[in-house]
Amino acid sequence: MNGVGAHEIIIETASHTRDINSFGAIEFVQDIVVAQERINDLKNDSRFEYISLFKNHGQDAGETISHPHFQLVALPIIPKNIKDEMFTAQKYYEFKERCLICDIIEQEISSGARIVTESDSFLAFVPFASRYPFETWILPKEHTGDFRTIHDKKKIEEMSEVCISVFRRLFKVLDKPSYNLVLKSLPLKQDYLQYYHWHVEIVPKITRFTGFELGTGMYINPTIPEESAKFLREAE
Amino acid sequence: MNGVGAHEIIIETASHTRDINSFGAIEFVQDIVVAQERINDLKNDSRFEYISLFKNHGQDAGETISHPHFQLVALPIIPKNIKDEMFTAQKYYEFKERCLICDIIEQEISSGARIVTESDSFLAFVPFASRYPFETWILPKEHTGDFRTIHDKKKIEEMSEVCISVFRRLFKVLDKPSYNLVLKSLPLKQDYLQYYHWHVEIVPKITRFTGFELGTGMYINPTIPEESAKFLREAE
Repeated sequence: MNGVGAHEIIIETASHTRDINSFGAIEFVQDIVVAQERINDLKNDSRFEYISLFKNHGQDAGETISHPHFQLVALPIIPKNIKDEMFTAQKYYEFKERCLICDIIEQEISSGARIVTESDSFLAFVPFASRYPFETWILPKEHTGDFRTIHDKKKIEEMSEVCISVFRRLFKVLDKPSYNLVLKSLPLKQDYLQYYHWHVEIVPKITRFTGFELGTGMYINPTIPEESAKFLREAE
Repeated sequence: MNGVGAHEIIIETASHTRDINSFGAIEFVQDIVVAQERINDLKNDSRFEYISLFKNHGQDAGETISHPHFQLVALPIIPKNIKDEMFTAQKYYEFKERCLICDIIEQEISSGARIVTESDSFLAFVPFASRYPFETWILPKEHTGDFRTIHDKKKIEEMSEVCISVFRRLFKVLDKPSYNLVLKSLPLKQDYLQYYHWHVEIVPKITRFTGFELGTGMYINPTIPEESAKFLREAE
């Protein structure tokens, strides 16, 4: 492995003080379109194996520039977290002949208890085994491993509306929290296409990482996911 | 798996405001002796598979009680982090016929660049691949997987002196930082004895966990381990 990579900043708005929760859905569309364009371009560099798209908002989330922005890091390896997820998704697929996340979506929709909001094609929910209070995932209902498959203009607008709706709810319920957002999508080269299902994870920073998490990799979450989801669902 | 466990607090001192850095080595001896006694006792409950001993100091480390204390959590499973470490240690041992951490100790002593302090039987150093700035590990030079094998009075005193020395240096260089401490020792039942090497990890909380760490499991550390070690080495 060589120590090569790329690190890009996607500036979301000309306004220094605005944040996603005050965006119109149309503005967030630009975030998605630009992120896809940059991934498409960086993919041409054959040294890169994975691209991580993320956002840090607020001091507790490690924000170093306060102007609203996303970050994009291209890496010469597939990170351990992603490898673990791909491996788990593949094992599940081989065992069940179905996608793990498709099965989660079906369970979440049939239960309804952890849903935050949804549209025809997208679902936002608080995971059953949430690591953090008010952790929220947003994903396409249709099985697709690569974020860039959402290139239809109407689909991007729909995704944007669901994302903005989630942020408005989080900002209202948690009073402008610090948060991290991360996109989990396919590695650039290795073919896990049929196993994986891209999604966005949003983690408000309310609790602290302690010695217990450091020592075990297990997470103490003092909130009930169903209650967090109810707060968020009823917030708008 | 049943949802059983134990959670104990080890109160370190009668003084509400003191902390480890102001302890004499004799006081820290009590921490070690009591922790070993509690692990020996909890081990009798056959439902427990692993005991995590840790300490959170300061708000950024998730401290919820300010009186100096350790925490001890007994779990009905072997946590993922520990399983991963045991697996890696075992693979290395089978491949090299030597302990991974023994090899690290040999390299650290022969290089010297990342050593913080040492005694006849214990070594404190900043790991080559530190995840966090000023991360420091303390471990026995002799190959032993279980923390409770340090039952000789002189050995416990020696360990205590090395620990206190590390804390004094960290508190001086970083101006009373928040920190997490965690003991990594063998699971209670499964036999990894020959592969593993117990150690203490101390992580000052200077940087924040960001979306990059969340998305990849990789850690951005803006400090050079050799420089951190030099600061700590020269601090006393």
